[in-house]
Amino acid sequence: MPYIDIQIFEGRDEEKKQRLVSAITKDVSEILEIDPEGITIAITEYKQENWASGGVLFSKKNYQVK
Amino acid sequence: MPYIDIQIFEGRDEEKKQRLVSAITKDVSEILEIDPEGITIAITEYKQENWASGGVLFSKKNYQVK
Amino acid sequence: MPYIDIQIFEGRDEEKKQRLVSAITKDVSEILEIDPEGITIAITEYKQENWASGGVLFSKKNYQVK
Amino acid sequence: MPYIDIQIFEGRDEEKKQRLVSAITKDVSEILEIDPEGITIAITEYKQENWASGGVLFSKKNYQVK
Amino acid sequence: MPYIDIQIFEGRDEEKKQRLVSAITKDVSEILEIDPEGITIAITEYKQENWASGGVLFSKKNYQVK
Amino acid sequence: MPYIDIQIFEGRDEEKKQRLVSAITKDVSEILEIDPEGITIAITEYKQENWASGGVLFSKKNYQVK
Repeated sequence: MPYIDIQIFEGRDEEKKQRLVSAITKDVSEILEIDPEGITIAITEYKQENWASGGVLFSKKNYQVK
Repeated sequence: MPYIDIQIFEGRDEEKKQRLVSAITKDVSEILEIDPEGITIAITEYKQENWASGGVLFSKKNYQVK
Repeated sequence: MPYIDIQIFEGRDEEKKQRLVSAITKDVSEILEIDPEGITIAITEYKQENWASGGVLFSKKNYQVK
Repeated sequence: MPYIDIQIFEGRDEEKKQRLVSAITKDVSEILEIDPEGITIAITEYKQENWASGGVLFSKKNYQVK
Repeated sequence: MPYIDIQIFEGRDEEKKQRLVSAITKDVSEILEIDPEGITIAITEYKQENWASGGVLFSKKNYQVK
Repeated sequence: MPYIDIQIFEGRDEEKKQRLVSAITKDVSEILEIDPEGITIAITEYKQENWASGGVLFSKKNYQVK
């Protein structure tokens, strides 16, 4: 505890994911005064055809994952 | 907001997913009086060996995804 | 199956929730060709101080739930 | 109802998953006095590069899935 | 890891919840050969007016939580 | 997109939550090169009797939320 689920588009490499969990763990640990060892982060990756806003799938928009 | 997560079996094509998010976005927008642009939908796809009811995986039942 | 989780702000009454699950069940049943009895919908309600976009909690914005 | 989501690392075969849903369904049915047919279990599988504790991805630790 | 989310109706007391997490932790530990200390369980409680099957809220059915 | 769900124990005030979403939004925006406006964060609060590790509810441990 805490448990954090981050939902992103697929396409980021392991180093970017590592930077992400490192930064978020540090912030959560400091702000909530929690031992980093107790912080769990799950990354859930979505294809653009499995995510929509405004009623339109992202696979039908011009969206670039960096 | 709102955020909607739809958990389905894998096997539907992009057009079926587009019809699904289009219809649900329209429903939610009308009933909750929300701008469609604020409505996010995630589609999470499961294999039949990762879903169970009555203590039995769907991969062990005779279940057809249409 | 399917299982659908709708995350909304608190403040809607039972009749509005009933209209919401009724409309979504009908759409999902028709588009995915599934018996309505197999469709489960969970409504998860959030306080405005538990939801943020752009790094700002909704409790700090001027947002009206209808 | 109930709906149970089990998040594990990928790499278990169908028989292990079947034993898992069978045991959990039996326990939940007995303890909550619920018909097993009403119990749904979803298994969500993660790669080790999508799960972190202590700010470090499991793909960077020496972790063995049995 | 693993992380397990159990979604139930509200109304069970702490002892029933303790029996539930104890039994599920034992199941998962034995079948997946995992140290129980690594197993996290979240219980998410729903009101009957926030859960539907067949397009009808449970608050509108005759459903008894034991 | 992305959508982030943070599961914490109840008991933090609005200012602590605001600092949390502000820091995480900044992290995610910088590392994934995403406009902060596209980042959604949900905070889901749990009672200690609804969270367990090692098969024991936190309400039965000596755990302090700061």
